[in-house]
Amino acid sequence: MSTTNVIKCKAAVAWERGKPLVIEDVEVAPPKVHEVRIKIVATGVCHTDWEYLTGKGMKFRPFPLVLGHEAAGIVESVGPEVTKFSPGDKVIPLFLPQCGECDRCQSPKTNHCRKNWAHTQRGVMADGTSRITHQSQQVYQFLGVSSFSQYTVVPDTSLAKIPSNAPLDKVCLLGCGVSTGYGAALNAGKIEKDSSCAVFGLGAVGLAAIMGCQAAQAKRIIGVDINPDKFEKAKMFGATECVNPQDYSKPIQDVLVEMTEGGVDCALECVGSPVIMSAALESTKDAWGTCVIAGWSETEAMSVNVEKILMGRTLKGTYFGDWKSVDGVSKLVEDYMNNKLKLDEFITNNLPLDQINVAFEHMKIGKGIRTVISLWPEEASDTVATLKMNQ
Amino acid sequence: MSTTNVIKCKAAVAWERGKPLVIEDVEVAPPKVHEVRIKIVATGVCHTDWEYLTGKGMKFRPFPLVLGHEAAGIVESVGPEVTKFSPGDKVIPLFLPQCGECDRCQSPKTNHCRKNWAHTQRGVMADGTSRITHQSQQVYQFLGVSSFSQYTVVPDTSLAKIPSNAPLDKVCLLGCGVSTGYGAALNAGKIEKDSSCAVFGLGAVGLAAIMGCQAAQAKRIIGVDINPDKFEKAKMFGATECVNPQDYSKPIQDVLVEMTEGGVDCALECVGSPVIMSAALESTKDAWGTCVIAGWSETEAMSVNVEKILMGRTLKGTYFGDWKSVDGVSKLVEDYMNNKLKLDEFITNNLPLDQINVAFEHMKIGKGIRTVISLWPEEASDTVATLKMNQ
Repeated sequence: MSTTNVIKCKAAVAWERGKPLVIEDVEVAPPKVHEVRIKIVATGVCHTDWEYLTGKGMKFRPFPLVLGHEAAGIVESVGPEVTKFSPGDKVIPLFLPQCGECDRCQSPKTNHCRKNWAHTQRGVMADGTSRITHQSQQVYQFLGVSSFSQYTVVPDTSLAKIPSNAPLDKVCLLGCGVSTGYGAALNAGKIEKDSSCAVFGLGAVGLAAIMGCQAAQAKRIIGVDINPDKFEKAKMFGATECVNPQDYSKPIQDVLVEMTEGGVDCALECVGSPVIMSAALESTKDAWGTCVIAGWSETEAMSVNVEKILMGRTLKGTYFGDWKSVDGVSKLVEDYMNNKLKLDEFITNNLPLDQINVAFEHMKIGKGIRTVISLWPEEASDTVATLKMNQ
Repeated sequence: MSTTNVIKCKAAVAWERGKPLVIEDVEVAPPKVHEVRIKIVATGVCHTDWEYLTGKGMKFRPFPLVLGHEAAGIVESVGPEVTKFSPGDKVIPLFLPQCGECDRCQSPKTNHCRKNWAHTQRGVMADGTSRITHQSQQVYQFLGVSSFSQYTVVPDTSLAKIPSNAPLDKVCLLGCGVSTGYGAALNAGKIEKDSSCAVFGLGAVGLAAIMGCQAAQAKRIIGVDINPDKFEKAKMFGATECVNPQDYSKPIQDVLVEMTEGGVDCALECVGSPVIMSAALESTKDAWGTCVIAGWSETEAMSVNVEKILMGRTLKGTYFGDWKSVDGVSKLVEDYMNNKLKLDEFITNNLPLDQINVAFEHMKIGKGIRTVISLWPEEASDTVATLKMNQ
């Protein structure tokens, strides 16, 4: 329980833009005030990691960098003034804080807490430095998380405590993709019973959005993807039908408007492509159609046909599915434990940390949905033992 | 009360795109089933009339055409099956219907009733023809209204009955601009008490939006216009401050974000310019900022910075201020009669029909706010007499 020792461990370091990650021995400094050091047990590999690495549609962030932001782990030690966490607690680190004290945390209108935001966006902690180094060189922490490392340090306002019997290699997915898509439908889209929805992009975020539409009892849930291999899974998650834009000569928005006699009540963009965002908006019904952007793009602009907006449509974005991060993740873990939420079905591959570049390769060719990386493959039985001990 | 006679009267006819209107003798046919013939007493001249005439940012509509859509008048006769109106009733014709029976009229989510829509958008009535002719040539009816004519015929679902003591030369403004701006703030923007707002464009729609922000008890109401001559009036309507983008070297959105320490809670675009729409969106606060588009453009696209949307902003449009047209106008006339709503202050000029092109000239140079056209200047005392008779 010491909070002064430096931990040496393995991490996948992104040394430069577009290059494969390199497994390195890194040093993880002890947590400072209001910080928590975590042993990362499992982490998902998200498109956003890939996009930051390649720089596609993203703002520059400094290298070297440890990516990874969708994870679960166990508290190793806590810094001064940390009151809510103790060593041994199971946790999910969060790229979006919930300090619980600011105006935004007090408001029901938003989940955009800005505690430590300027720092974590720059890859550092509140004191302006990273806790990860490689041979004394600072290695930046992606979104203040960096879960492609066996240990990391996060602010105590960016961490959700979860039940001791939660399977970390599953609930890690609630750190980003599944929460984002599911909340995009339920919180941002406010999908209504018997409504019609279209979900653009059938990756993890899109499938989770479909699951949200189903939870809200939508009547028609139309999955849209150019990869028909995704359709079977989409239907398993609740899609009532799937369409492939490449099967049509006219724009997909026209196809959807025709299929639904005027447009869907809600369209959810889960790709991060401005062109698809415009198509999603135009596939909604006039009068009350809502288009929710859940796919990520930082630098691009989408084109909005003004008349479509004037005729009663709404365009909104969602960040982390509009969940207040700590409260939302706690609730979603509980829902999963109570079989109200699918998670296992998202996982199509499990790999050890040293094969993390394979996960990116799969992503590039659209193979599978989510790869979960085990940070401690050789310790799997130990982890299980720890879990049992904590129960 | 005959419904078979053709009325001969004066109308300002738009013969071709971009050319001045010509005062012509036209024939106005009797109302058909579910139609009402109205003597137009007063009509506002709206930017939208001008833009349709010049074709700027608008879809093609056929010529010859009688423009005008912001008016008030007196029912002259009613067609078969009209039950809600009688000759002598004071009315405001509406370019947006409220049939009261369709799914949309039954839903609290929208005001987009589509009764007769396809026809009125093409300038004709439900039977596919216009009721206005000039020497037997069909003259199209703008948005199903055509208030630049001494008489016109409208569907009975596009007409609001108003109190017999309502001054038609004032309440005519509730047929479009004032209702649109006021509702943009109250209904679409849902302006909250103590919030901060920016209103882009200080014409009639913008001033009405300011009035709506004030009615909602916003704390800061920032008027934005490149014509500082509008600032005094804006302040009279409730603006707490005004800014001229031309006074700054940086973009106006940056100026507003700085002035408000992060952006306004709600921005209202009342110009109809895609560039200004983007600026309005970017002037809102992250987390919950809302941008309402009230300015009109039919053919153009605006550019939306995706990250701005992802960070919690919402973009929405409004058509007729989200008022259910019949109910909304009735309520607003009542508010005006009870001194809860300003109207007289919007009117900066009164002209007879034969000087209608002067109103467009004033509009072009940004002189004044609203011109109200009197269709029967020589009958002013008669109209008053009629009013008294009806009281």
